[in-house]
Amino acid sequence: MTVGGASTTIGHGPADPFDTDGRYDLASLERDLPAAVTAELADYLAGRRQDTLDVAEEFAEATDDLTRFVLAGGKRLRPTFAWWGWRAAGGLDDPGTVLRAVSALELIQGCALVHDDLIDDSATRRGQPTVHARWSSRHTGAGWAGDPTRFGAAVAILLGDVALAWADDMLHDAGLDPTAIRRARPVWQAMRTEVLGGQFLDVSGHASSDSRPETALRISRYKTAAYTIERPLHLGAAIAGADDATVRALRHYGRDLGIAFQLRDDVLGVFGDPAVTGKPAGDDLREGKLTLLVALTRNHPDRATAAVVERTLGKPDLTADDVAAAREAMQTLGVVDDVEARIADLTASALDAVRGTDAPALVPPAPERLADLAVAATRRAR
Amino acid sequence: MTVGGASTTIGHGPADPFDTDGRYDLASLERDLPAAVTAELADYLAGRRQDTLDVAEEFAEATDDLTRFVLAGGKRLRPTFAWWGWRAAGGLDDPGTVLRAVSALELIQGCALVHDDLIDDSATRRGQPTVHARWSSRHTGAGWAGDPTRFGAAVAILLGDVALAWADDMLHDAGLDPTAIRRARPVWQAMRTEVLGGQFLDVSGHASSDSRPETALRISRYKTAAYTIERPLHLGAAIAGADDATVRALRHYGRDLGIAFQLRDDVLGVFGDPAVTGKPAGDDLREGKLTLLVALTRNHPDRATAAVVERTLGKPDLTADDVAAAREAMQTLGVVDDVEARIADLTASALDAVRGTDAPALVPPAPERLADLAVAATRRAR
Repeated sequence: MTVGGASTTIGHGPADPFDTDGRYDLASLERDLPAAVTAELADYLAGRRQDTLDVAEEFAEATDDLTRFVLAGGKRLRPTFAWWGWRAAGGLDDPGTVLRAVSALELIQGCALVHDDLIDDSATRRGQPTVHARWSSRHTGAGWAGDPTRFGAAVAILLGDVALAWADDMLHDAGLDPTAIRRARPVWQAMRTEVLGGQFLDVSGHASSDSRPETALRISRYKTAAYTIERPLHLGAAIAGADDATVRALRHYGRDLGIAFQLRDDVLGVFGDPAVTGKPAGDDLREGKLTLLVALTRNHPDRATAAVVERTLGKPDLTADDVAAAREAMQTLGVVDDVEARIADLTASALDAVRGTDAPALVPPAPERLADLAVAATRRAR
Repeated sequence: MTVGGASTTIGHGPADPFDTDGRYDLASLERDLPAAVTAELADYLAGRRQDTLDVAEEFAEATDDLTRFVLAGGKRLRPTFAWWGWRAAGGLDDPGTVLRAVSALELIQGCALVHDDLIDDSATRRGQPTVHARWSSRHTGAGWAGDPTRFGAAVAILLGDVALAWADDMLHDAGLDPTAIRRARPVWQAMRTEVLGGQFLDVSGHASSDSRPETALRISRYKTAAYTIERPLHLGAAIAGADDATVRALRHYGRDLGIAFQLRDDVLGVFGDPAVTGKPAGDDLREGKLTLLVALTRNHPDRATAAVVERTLGKPDLTADDVAAAREAMQTLGVVDDVEARIADLTASALDAVRGTDAPALVPPAPERLADLAVAATRRAR
């Protein structure tokens, strides 16, 4: 396995993950897991290029765009949690294989983002045009036949499908032994179905104006918690052959922290500083997103104050004053305090599951790293 | 493995595929492979229902719609070819497992059809509303918030993704032994990438008005031939552990027959009888589809006659007279004779690969059945 020139794309000075014998050095690897994940993705995707070039040059150019999108992005949370699930359960041998296997989670995420951006018709992600927007512009720029929007959508559908198919391929190409794959598959299956279910609930809840707090929590559970933390941890633990008590503890941590993580995101979506979040102030209000904050507001008996928030939901030309008024109304209703209290409780429960007196013995340094990740995922600014 | 009540959904009186000891009876199974495939799909999809119900009742209802779509349809060509690839290479043991594994191809096809219908904005398939059209109507009927078209598209994207994820799951859940899976994976990978590449070329060729005959043939190669015949045969042969000569012969047959099959479909798309094809007369002309017939017409030196065809391409209000004029012009140009000659040559070459004097010894009755399938795939009316 080579990481080749991939490290040049990483940008924040990763430690060389190999020791002098060319083997993975766990300590240096774990100093910058996101960089190591990106290097695995770069290597895997470079290896698939010939497959697309064999079909046609144009197709290889399209999948290059997918590759750039996947390599550009993110905190690599899912592989990171999967890694610590594996380590927590005693995984130690053949770390390069495991790193590659869990990096496949980022290709599922690639599909989810490309398809979600299309579903939401988002123009940008991380400051760059989204995949469908870029291909739509390319169509316009080239003066091609037909509707640019439809063309952009078609390419985004197909490239998302490529990412989803390749996610499976990367998991299976990583070199896990057949028993580890057999243990990993049910978790992998559950996770893919759950995230698609969460996305479906988000879309259908929005359409049917479902404002129940339990719907908001259910979407958080499946679209975020299961997919981002619970199942990745479970996947890593399954690869390591974890016992039931370890799996239970990790899933408990993952479920609670995952919901807390989404609730923190919801609060930042209304109260966050654009300079920190990278999104416009009050973006969730503008989108009319069903969050627990919104659901609690809509179900609050003080209808007059709730109406101040209601007026901002889905308002495309939302002003700074609108955002300020909605923030004040949510504070007045007490829904922010309610959500903050839930975040604190869920985070404490998550930590207790992996570090409390009844927690199973997880292999160090996993408990400490999971505690660090819990703090990072739920802090007030990130 | 149970097929339970599934046979009630099949509708054309399948033979019971089990002998008196509850084992698969090959002879009766092979009398109606499509029915046996449908029974496997019904059983597998029924088993996945709880996974979606665990997320939410609404999600289970949505995936029920996907299940109906998958069970309603088609000639089950891909599993049928995979089956005969397996049998040709000497596969005999554990036919129920192999049948289930190759039936997973129909879930890839489910994704391809749901996403393709959305990309093409087709209103109907096999006389029923397409998935995006049905969910769009449901949105309108319920008086939900937002744009019905966008909602229908979102659900179709997500249900297509479910089908693609479940295809992998079904292949892996079938119970193949790890060595058979290891042999099957590279073929499975190549096939999924190739069909997405073929779809991409179709979309991008249409947009860029690429009219080269080699582009039309390349789309036929990847969107149809590799995906429908060559790779399914290869997959079955790989599961059986076929030797190189057998794989080469089957792939040669599959590639040539697959292109012939697409060319026959192209001819029927212009000359077919609506009562037989189930599609309006001249439907490919109305869609402006780049077929080899169209590419040869556009590259013909007789520009005046070619212009008669050109005027009909992409014309939404195409009349019976337009279709008749385009047919006559294509006959005059000789492009129909050219395509018919290619179909005959490719079919002969395909048959020679599996039954000719240099063909490897394939296990009976596979060569005869492959010959029957070649005739069925390329006959003038079907």
